[in-house]
Order: sequence, then C-alpha cells, then structure tokens
Amino acid sequence: MAIRTVVWGENIHERINAVVAEIYPKGMHTTIADALNTDSAISATTATLEQDEHGLPQARLDETDVLIWWGHKDHGAVNDEIVERVAKRVWEGMGLIVLHSGHFSKIFKRLMGTPCDLKWREAGERERIWVTNPGHPIAQGLGDGFAIENEEMYGEHFDVPEPLETVFISWFQGGEVFRSGLTYRRGNGNVFYFRPGHETYPTYHQAPVQHVLRNAVKWAYNANNRNTAVHYGNVPVEKAPEPITERGPKLHAPGEEGYK
Amino acid sequence: MAIRTVVWGENIHERINAVVAEIYPKGMHTTIADALNTDSAISATTATLEQDEHGLPQARLDETDVLIWWGHKDHGAVNDEIVERVAKRVWEGMGLIVLHSGHFSKIFKRLMGTPCDLKWREAGERERIWVTNPGHPIAQGLGDGFAIENEEMYGEHFDVPEPLETVFISWFQGGEVFRSGLTYRRGNGNVFYFRPGHETYPTYHQAPVQHVLRNAVKWAYNANNRNTAVHYGNVPVEKAPEPITERGPKLHAPGEEGYK
Amino acid sequence: MAIRTVVWGENIHERINAVVAEIYPKGMHTTIADALNTDSAISATTATLEQDEHGLPQARLDETDVLIWWGHKDHGAVNDEIVERVAKRVWEGMGLIVLHSGHFSKIFKRLMGTPCDLKWREAGERERIWVTNPGHPIAQGLGDGFAIENEEMYGEHFDVPEPLETVFISWFQGGEVFRSGLTYRRGNGNVFYFRPGHETYPTYHQAPVQHVLRNAVKWAYNANNRNTAVHYGNVPVEKAPEPITERGPKLHAPGEEGYK
Amino acid sequence: MAIRTVVWGENIHERINAVVAEIYPKGMHTTIADALNTDSAISATTATLEQDEHGLPQARLDETDVLIWWGHKDHGAVNDEIVERVAKRVWEGMGLIVLHSGHFSKIFKRLMGTPCDLKWREAGERERIWVTNPGHPIAQGLGDGFAIENEEMYGEHFDVPEPLETVFISWFQGGEVFRSGLTYRRGNGNVFYFRPGHETYPTYHQAPVQHVLRNAVKWAYNANNRNTAVHYGNVPVEKAPEPITERGPKLHAPGEEGYK
Repeated sequence: MAIRTVVWGENIHERINAVVAEIYPKGMHTTIADALNTDSAISATTATLEQDEHGLPQARLDETDVLIWWGHKDHGAVNDEIVERVAKRVWEGMGLIVLHSGHFSKIFKRLMGTPCDLKWREAGERERIWVTNPGHPIAQGLGDGFAIENEEMYGEHFDVPEPLETVFISWFQGGEVFRSGLTYRRGNGNVFYFRPGHETYPTYHQAPVQHVLRNAVKWAYNANNRNTAVHYGNVPVEKAPEPITERGPKLHAPGEEGYK
Repeated sequence: MAIRTVVWGENIHERINAVVAEIYPKGMHTTIADALNTDSAISATTATLEQDEHGLPQARLDETDVLIWWGHKDHGAVNDEIVERVAKRVWEGMGLIVLHSGHFSKIFKRLMGTPCDLKWREAGERERIWVTNPGHPIAQGLGDGFAIENEEMYGEHFDVPEPLETVFISWFQGGEVFRSGLTYRRGNGNVFYFRPGHETYPTYHQAPVQHVLRNAVKWAYNANNRNTAVHYGNVPVEKAPEPITERGPKLHAPGEEGYK
Repeated sequence: MAIRTVVWGENIHERINAVVAEIYPKGMHTTIADALNTDSAISATTATLEQDEHGLPQARLDETDVLIWWGHKDHGAVNDEIVERVAKRVWEGMGLIVLHSGHFSKIFKRLMGTPCDLKWREAGERERIWVTNPGHPIAQGLGDGFAIENEEMYGEHFDVPEPLETVFISWFQGGEVFRSGLTYRRGNGNVFYFRPGHETYPTYHQAPVQHVLRNAVKWAYNANNRNTAVHYGNVPVEKAPEPITERGPKLHAPGEEGYK
Repeated sequence: MAIRTVVWGENIHERINAVVAEIYPKGMHTTIADALNTDSAISATTATLEQDEHGLPQARLDETDVLIWWGHKDHGAVNDEIVERVAKRVWEGMGLIVLHSGHFSKIFKRLMGTPCDLKWREAGERERIWVTNPGHPIAQGLGDGFAIENEEMYGEHFDVPEPLETVFISWFQGGEVFRSGLTYRRGNGNVFYFRPGHETYPTYHQAPVQHVLRNAVKWAYNANNRNTAVHYGNVPVEKAPEPITERGPKLHAPGEEGYK
C-alpha cells in the first residue's frame, strides 16, 4: 500500500500575495503533493489552515502515515487542540516532515522543546545544500548536494536539540551556514526538518527539492504507526516478570493509578 | 563563586504522609540541599510548590545556576507561566536536574517534547544502578555502580528522546531495566534526568545518591547561563557578512519583523 | 530483489565441542541463515573462517548487501587484510550485524575505535531483553521485549562509543544489565550490535531472536551500498562552486595530490 | 593543578618550507603551546615527530591530561606502536584535540573507525566559522562565530561518525561548508576535532582560534584520566551481585580467561 501522506499548507500567502499566487497558483501544498504523487509508493493529499479542524480531523490523522507541514504567516491561528492531536499521532508513529518557516510552527516547537529560533534574510541569494550524510536514505540520489539559485537565508544558531543525524548543511551567498536537514525521533515517530521553501521563490518546483521530499516521506514512514504494543503504567507485584515479595512502605493502594 | 543551586520540592507527601514525614522531616528538598551543601563548590537553597510563585520568582531564577526538580502528587498544580519561565532560563543556560517522578512534571515534558511515560511498581525491591559511561563527569567516583536496597521500580520503555549520553542503567529485582541517568541539552542548558528517589524510601539519605547529585550539579553548571551573545532574527541585506545584492521578490518590507 | 546476506560463522566450537555440535549440527551460521531465509525479502548464504579468504573474497563482498558476523574462539585468526576489506565495504554502504562474542572481533573493534570490552559470566542464567526504542524498525513486532531462559551474562560497562540509538537493554538474573542492541553508522554502512548468542545455548533457534535478526537485516540494508557519488580530494580553484581568486602562499603545486 | 597539555607537531614544513618557517619560526606546536600557556589553568609543553618515540614515551603520556595533534606531510612516519599507546591513553581518559590535517592522522582514523576523508582546496580563501552550539563549553566567548581571512578549504562530506555534538560549521568563500568542530567520546577520553590551521597561513596566531584551543583543552580535560575503576572480564558465579545457581552447559572451566 502506498504511504498515505498529507501535505498541510497554511495557504495564506498563495491567496493574498500576487507573487506567491503566480508561483503556486494551486497553493504550495498542491505543488508538493503533486511532486510526491509522481512516485507510486506515495499517495499524497492536502489539508489547509482554513478547513474545518485545519483539515486534520482525528479520523483522517488516524489514517495518515506521514504529515508534511508548511506554515509561516499565522502559526498562532493553529488550534492548540489540533497541535496536541498531531503530536500524539507522531508519538504513535506517524512521520512528520517540517518545512522551512515551519520551524516556528506550534507542532515543531512542541516536539523539540526549544525555541527553534534562527537568523534570516530575504535577499533572493544563492543557497548551496551539501550532503553531510551520504549513506542516509534521505540523501540518496543527490550526490554531493545541489544549489537553489534564489532563496531566503536561514543562519545559525538554529535553536533546536542536537539531532540524531545531520543530513544536509546549507551555504549562503551572504556568508551564513545552516543545518538544513535534521532527523529526530519523538516517541515512535520519525521527524525531519528540511530548510528550503520560501514562498516567493519557486523552490518546490525544483527537481532536487522534490527528490528530497520523496526520500523523506519514505524514511519517515513507520509501518507500525498505530503502536499499541508498549505497556505503560503500573505493573502489579504479582505480575512482575521475576517473582518478588512486596516490602517496605508504599504510597499507593493496590490497583490505584499513579499520579500524572 | 559557588554554584547557585535551587532544590525545588513539591513538599506534599512530606506533610500529609506519616511514612514520608518520618524519613524526610524537613522535606526531601532540604535533605537534598543539605547533601549538596557539604561541597563548598555548591551553594544550595530550596523552593516549594506552596510558596508564592512556587518559590521561583523571575529575580530568583535569574540568579540560579542549576535547578533541581522533584514532584509527584500534583504536577498539575504548577502554574504554566512558571513552567515557561523555567524553560526560558534553561534555554538561556541554567542547568536542570529532574528527579524520579519528576519525569511527569510539566517542565520535563515541556523540554522533552514527548509523553515521558514509563512502567512502575511500588514493591520496595532492590535496584542496582550500573555506570554505562564511566568517563562522564556525573559518573566519577562511583566505580561500576551502586545498589539501593528499597526502591520503586521504573521500567522501559521510557518515552523520552534519545539522549546525548546514557550515564546509568538500572536493574530491578522484579525483572525490569531502566535508563536511569540521561543527559540532554536544550538551548544552552544542560539537562539531566536521574531516576531514584521514591518518597517512601530513604534514597536521598544514601551516600552514592548524594554523590551523583553533587556531580550532576557541577556537570549541569554553565558559567555562561545568561547567554545573550547569540543574535537571532533578521539580518538586513546591507549587514550580510559577505556583500550581496538583493534580488527577486520578497515578502517583508525593509526592517519589518518576521512572523512567529 | 532480495537482500543478499552473508552469515559469517567462526565454525570452531560447532566442530570441536560436543555440546555446541548437538545444538548446531550444521553450524550456527547455517541456523541463522535458515532463519533469515524464511523471509522472502532476504536471501542468505554462509561463509566460515576455514574457507579460502574466510569465504569473503572481494567479488563476493561486492555482491553482499548485509554481513552478519559471529566469532568467539579465534578472532586473531582472521586475516587483517580481509578485515580491512570488510571495513571498506561497510564504508561503501554494506550493512554489518555483529553478534554476541563478535564484540571482540577485529572488524567490530576496527569500526568502533574502542576496546569493546565488557563483563561476562557463563552460568546459564535468564536474560530479559527489553525494548527501549519501540519505534525503531529493529524492534517491530516484539512488544515490550522477550526472555531467553539460558544465556551467558554480559555486563556493563560495554566499552563502545555512544550509539546512534539504543534499541534493547538486557536484564540478567545475576544482577547485571547490558545495552543489547545498539546502532551505528560508519561511512555509508549501517552497523548493529546484538548481544545474545552464546554457543552452548540454543539461542539462535528461538523465534524472537530470529525475528530480531530479520528486522536487523532489513534495517541495515542500504540500497545504495556501492556509493561512488561522493567526491573527495582536491577541488581545483577553477572548479570551486563560487568563483574565487587564488591568493596567499600554498604548499601544493597545481594538480598535486594531497598528503595521506 | 594546571591541565598538563602536550602539543604534538609534525614539525616538517616549518623546517623545509620557507613560507611556513617565516610564519612559525619556532614551529606551530610552540605557537600553540604559548597560546595555551597564557591561561594559568593550562600547562602546555611540546613534542615532535623527530624526537625519540615522537616525544611521547609512556611515562610522559601517563602524566598528560590533554594531547593536541597536528600532522600533515608524513602521517605514515608515526610509529604504529605509539599510535596504540596514545589510543590507550585516550580510552583511559586523556583528552585528545585533533587539528586540521590531523583528520588523516593514524590516531584520529584509529579512534573514528572511518576513512576521515574530505574535499580540499588551497586558495587562501575566506573561512567563516559559525557557532552551532552556543551553550557548549568550547564555544564560550565566541558570540556567533568568527572569520579567518585566509585558509585552506575543507568541504563535506567529511567521512567521520555522527558526532556527540556539532559545535562549529564553516562557510567558505568558494561555496563549500564543513563541520569544523565535532565532539566525541572514546572510552573515557573526550575527543575534539577542530578544522582550521593550514600551515601556510597564520591561523594559530589569531586570537579567536587560540581562544577555541584554550576552551577545548578545558573541555577535554577529564580529572579521572587514569580510570581503573571499571572492572572488565569474568564475574565468577559466586560473585554475581544476585545469588544465582549455575546451570546448563558451559565452555569455560572455572577461573579460565575468556577469548580475545
């Protein structure tokens, strides 16, 4: 079965900004979903901010293997309850790919536990994306890396936790560098941050960027993403793997739930 | 100057539970602070839930190098605003040591970005804490490890992100294991989770446990914990490290702040 | 195409020790290969120490996707040249799974850069293997973990580098713990160390152990394991991605190779 | 007591190349040692390739807390026995700082377990070193980073294992990036790789570079660097932490040493 992927787009600048609308007439989310659907291993649909429940009702998320997130202008408009819903699905095993200005999205900050701040400059300068981990599945088929002629600069320090692996690092014409491809696991869910994608440039129309996104969806996919195999909570004394005798004082009466 | 350390205790069971009150007549926080103060490199004081602002007004946190956190019965009573205040200090560089049932504290879950769930059993069983990283500063002076005769069991899976380093792993009489000493960095702040310390046992009176706590305070200490050296936000084109010429369309007017 | 897997066995105790011969009449390597071949996604064959070039001529390694290594009695008999040959294939992207006493094999020590020492006891005690990373592909289908009734104990400290991820931790009846499933990447090659498998017990006949091995082969497989896409060495000034002018003194004449 | 630091220099180009001799008339090692000795917490001396035992007899290494390594032209001339001697001291807890072209030194490749290859270009171009981990002790006092006007370019992919933490990333005028500050632990020893330092430029005379080196020595220092507290090898059944009864067949007679 193809990897059920939802591309979430904020879909604001595509509607209110003429430049963006011209580059992405159907919205960035649609451009990205179309690029994913060129690969038969992926089945991508879209969701946007203005939809009911931002297009992410529980039933849909339950049948989503990988979620891609692009937002910029109005992160604050995303409902906190839906952020928690997405976080819970990631912990269960849904993959999450956060793009560009999504670094400041509620869901990314929620999962990182840090401010996710950075430097930026909007000058249409050249970005060179170098592969720092050529054996990683997300880097396959990219050789040493690739360039994007016009992009917004993001510069270090990028205030995120040390990643599991650094897959890409960007060079910018104006003198800065940025860790552009970072992997994390949160609960059972694979998380990938990928830097490029400022909305005033045609970044998501470029072949290498689309290639990275397809690789990333496959990497983020966890077949076991409705993981219920792990047992948390109390293990009664009589169910201890090794026979033991209870001793000493205790707080909890038998069968009582723990504090949370 | 000694490392300014605040030991935060929930201080509930010490007051309402006779067993706990007998073991820790002045509160667990005081026992821990006293143990830290045997080392002249550390200057420890205490704070508790019931105090105004939970004993953690901004001015005090600003002068705190390392915060130790023990809570269990009423994590929910901790004010969200103070949780954010503590998180912000960690990002600036304040060290944070989270103890035992503090795994479910708001501040720990906030910084981890995961549910931090686990298995548990209150049977007074034996715990053996093994050193898995003998070169780590927190493990110095402990040899291969040490035992605690009576402890609550915590078992894997412990739902936290992969740590920077695993310093201790616990063996339990009833058959479980647990990663008992884990390090993280969040922003500029060093974070250490240390498992032992169920309130119905005299864990914090034990010499090896106190030794770990002193080591951990020294490790978590970051001399530069009011870090303001990093610049985030917009880098105007004319201040790019390398001279560049602006080109292409853009979203932001000159000097305009970015979206958050 | 199925994952071309070679199971390398030292094949000494199976021939000279009656107990081992009875448990593994065709050799441990054959038992393991048979277990892998129950999955049509894997195509496993065997190689042993006494064969010419230890059964690992270059041409065979070139067509090997994943190599599994079990050795114990005579690590020193493995030819250094073949160790380097295997290491080079791992750097290119061949997966490597090192089993049990293989912790002291030349190839594992070569790739880890540490002594890989540990504690051990041969008492037929019970081992409980707990999953510490339920979202990891190698842990799929194992729930919380599983037990092995009779095993050799391996105890911490295990002197290896901090892993990318800790997948399993073992509990032993005699009181020790051990990080039993550890992942690494070396060059483009995925490396997994898996602890169980003392030759005097029927460990590799057990279903959960076989399940882990199949999971591990699939995880270790890197489709791009003849990676030649990365360019190392000199980048002449005229081929710099950005036009630059050479300046300042230099050591090397144009086109000269670097020191190694 | 000051941190006993030995700066090891190959000391070849300083003697045979006029450009290098003019920049470092007393050798690069002396310039580095002098820079370290401006800090009273460090006591630095030097050792060079041409000395007896390369200036690193066992007795001297035994009293060395941190070793700094610079080599380039003749890595092959370093005696294998001395490489093993240094590796063993690192495993015991001696810190190791590897500089620039030392990426190809025997000791670095020995500890990394990878080829440590990279791209390079000798064009005297500008390098900008950015701090990617402002909370790390090695980055203290550097703000966002610093620039070196003339340096050799090193470009990704740098074929080393994923580090514990990435502290610096370099930007090069010609378009490449490089992970310029990487931390590792091998055994009990802290290892830091720091990129800058091509011998035809006055890099080690620059204040920020010297500042990094002083920070790195303090970070790499492990007070317990003659670690003998960890016990490896056999744990006899009667000395198991928990009482167990031996059962099942075994390979080893009582008291017999394991295979290596």
